Amino acid sequence: MPAARQIFVAVIGAGGVGKAFLSQLSQLTKRLSSEPSTPINLALIYVARSSKVFFNEDYSPISISSWESDLASSTRTVPSPTQIADYLSKAPASVILVDNTSNEDVANAYPLFLGKKISVVTPNKKGFSSNLKLWQDIFKAASNGTGSGGYVFHESTVGAGLPVLSTLKDLIETGDEIVKIEGVFSGTMSFLFNSFMPVGGGGGSFSAEVTKAKELGYTEPDPRDDLNGLDVARKLTILARISGLEIESPASFPVQSLIPNELESCKSGDEFMKRLPEFDGEMDKLKQEAAKEGKVVRFVGSIDVAEKDVKVGLEKFDASHPIAALKGSDNIISFYTKRYGSNPLIIQGAGAGGDATAMGVTADLIKVLRLLL
Amino acid sequence: MPAARQIFVAVIGAGGVGKAFLSQLSQLTKRLSSEPSTPINLALIYVARSSKVFFNEDYSPISISSWESDLASSTRTVPSPTQIADYLSKAPASVILVDNTSNEDVANAYPLFLGKKISVVTPNKKGFSSNLKLWQDIFKAASNGTGSGGYVFHESTVGAGLPVLSTLKDLIETGDEIVKIEGVFSGTMSFLFNSFMPVGGGGGSFSAEVTKAKELGYTEPDPRDDLNGLDVARKLTILARISGLEIESPASFPVQSLIPNELESCKSGDEFMKRLPEFDGEMDKLKQEAAKEGKVVRFVGSIDVAEKDVKVGLEKFDASHPIAALKGSDNIISFYTKRYGSNPLIIQGAGAGGDATAMGVTADLIKVLRLLL
Repeated sequence: MPAARQIFVAVIGAGGVGKAFLSQLSQLTKRLSSEPSTPINLALIYVARSSKVFFNEDYSPISISSWESDLASSTRTVPSPTQIADYLSKAPASVILVDNTSNEDVANAYPLFLGKKISVVTPNKKGFSSNLKLWQDIFKAASNGTGSGGYVFHESTVGAGLPVLSTLKDLIETGDEIVKIEGVFSGTMSFLFNSFMPVGGGGGSFSAEVTKAKELGYTEPDPRDDLNGLDVARKLTILARISGLEIESPASFPVQSLIPNELESCKSGDEFMKRLPEFDGEMDKLKQEAAKEGKVVRFVGSIDVAEKDVKVGLEKFDASHPIAALKGSDNIISFYTKRYGSNPLIIQGAGAGGDATAMGVTADLIKVLRLLL
Repeated sequence: MPAARQIFVAVIGAGGVGKAFLSQLSQLTKRLSSEPSTPINLALIYVARSSKVFFNEDYSPISISSWESDLASSTRTVPSPTQIADYLSKAPASVILVDNTSNEDVANAYPLFLGKKISVVTPNKKGFSSNLKLWQDIFKAASNGTGSGGYVFHESTVGAGLPVLSTLKDLIETGDEIVKIEGVFSGTMSFLFNSFMPVGGGGGSFSAEVTKAKELGYTEPDPRDDLNGLDVARKLTILARISGLEIESPASFPVQSLIPNELESCKSGDEFMKRLPEFDGEMDKLKQEAAKEGKVVRFVGSIDVAEKDVKVGLEKFDASHPIAALKGSDNIISFYTKRYGSNPLIIQGAGAGGDATAMGVTADLIKVLRLLL
């Protein structure tokens, strides 16, 4: 067996996605170390969550079975992104940084990491959906952009582990023309509207469905963070930019918020939830209007590439439309292209959850490994 | 700008898929030669179809705009796969062989090509769905198998350009457990049954729908080549092998042929088409039985991984099932996995046609380029 090639992995963020990723990393490490042709020695050298960090000055590996206790008992001060970049750039092997946070400061440092030949894989939308300059700086630095630094992949920023970004890139790179992208991009919104207005009738009041979704853990702790549409707007920003549109920010196109104007000033999520039933009449009216046309209401995002028209909000769909037939909290993404004609290329399935999100991150990590070898 | 890296491309097969591929290759060549970070000089050095071949002894490139006339006027003798491998292995740059045929002899030579460090990308199912030994020899030789030869990719062998194999591999490599794969894997069968028994009723007799599909160019010249189910059986063999099942050949599991026993002996496709209406009664009976249960009949393939149960044939589906709702000649592939739970990861869209098939081939070529650089 040939000598194993050493690759270092640094992980920031050890919540739901981070834990699922570290579990997948553990499995992957075992498998790769026994590859007959090119064994790879994947070593975890840095692990951090918001207030804790664990690493060794001499880059000696952290045990992947005891990182949780190592992290819990660590008394190290959490370094700044600049300090992390400095530490990782001096490592005696190639480093892949896995950012499992949704932190803006870490995302702002991607160009710095990439410039220092540190590769980045992440489900963090902030780096790719904030101001356009950050997006440009990232791909100017990255080797899979126009630079010569590390590699960057972010499949899980849209649709979690579903192969959304890789498929869009394949379509473009093989010379297809993207006409329109349309879909349900939020597991929360999917669950909410599939329950509020199922095909065939039924469903409770809007506020009751939001309450149910919150109780089942389908919403953020404060449901306004889902209902404002910003999460979907960030995903649309990413897809539109890959499609060639220079979207300045998620605030550059119309995004319908489901937070009633009158409740914008609520001081807490609890106050908001208490007052939401006052607006059930408005949502019921929308539901009845759609039902009269034999349609259902769904919260969707769409990009018309030629018209440079990006939007997020409520739309009506025929009961037979794939978007109407969606189940549970699934996402659906339809690519209408010149090559695929009137029937789009459709990708559908769970677009959230720790394991599914971590899957996209791990698959990206494997892509970087192949490129580094 | 750094010096361009030279990569050679050899193309066998210049029919519908081959022509669409060469057109995509032409576009790609232009784009890659102007990449700011790593310009790639992709050069076509070999082009062949069944009875014609064109190449230069000194490996000087073939013009991508005039390959058709160069090929037409060539008087060279078509070399054997061994001779092709010998010629390509001595080229002064890395070579990617693109096999756009459905030829068995070429497929049998993949281990030879790969062993000589020639990479292979292909929509040709023969290499991956014939006897198990050939499959094993291919991946023993390939660098993305357990060997150290060329790279091999064959996305378009299932679902044309749809990201079916890459998604299945991502699921497995990131540690998910495949429970079941189910879908409509043939554009012809999809069109035929979506017309014969649309959701909501209607549709002509089975023989009339086969005649219509043939006239519209949706079937092979002899429709028996679709109706025997072998094309679907080959695709299932590939998916099952990637999922870890050691399927000896497409004849190792039950495949329902839609060619009535009594017509097995027909000497020509024409004779078969003439006699097919005699069996419309049987197909109508199936249709009515399904309708009574509120279901439709579809021609599907499925793999139950734990039970090692692979099968191809007619099955009944509720009108609300995604397989029933399929349109036109689209394919649909559902991955039921441990991670995705009860709602599968679904990929849907055109699974045939020159452009869509060539897309998978070109995307594979780009993957090999990234690995070679």
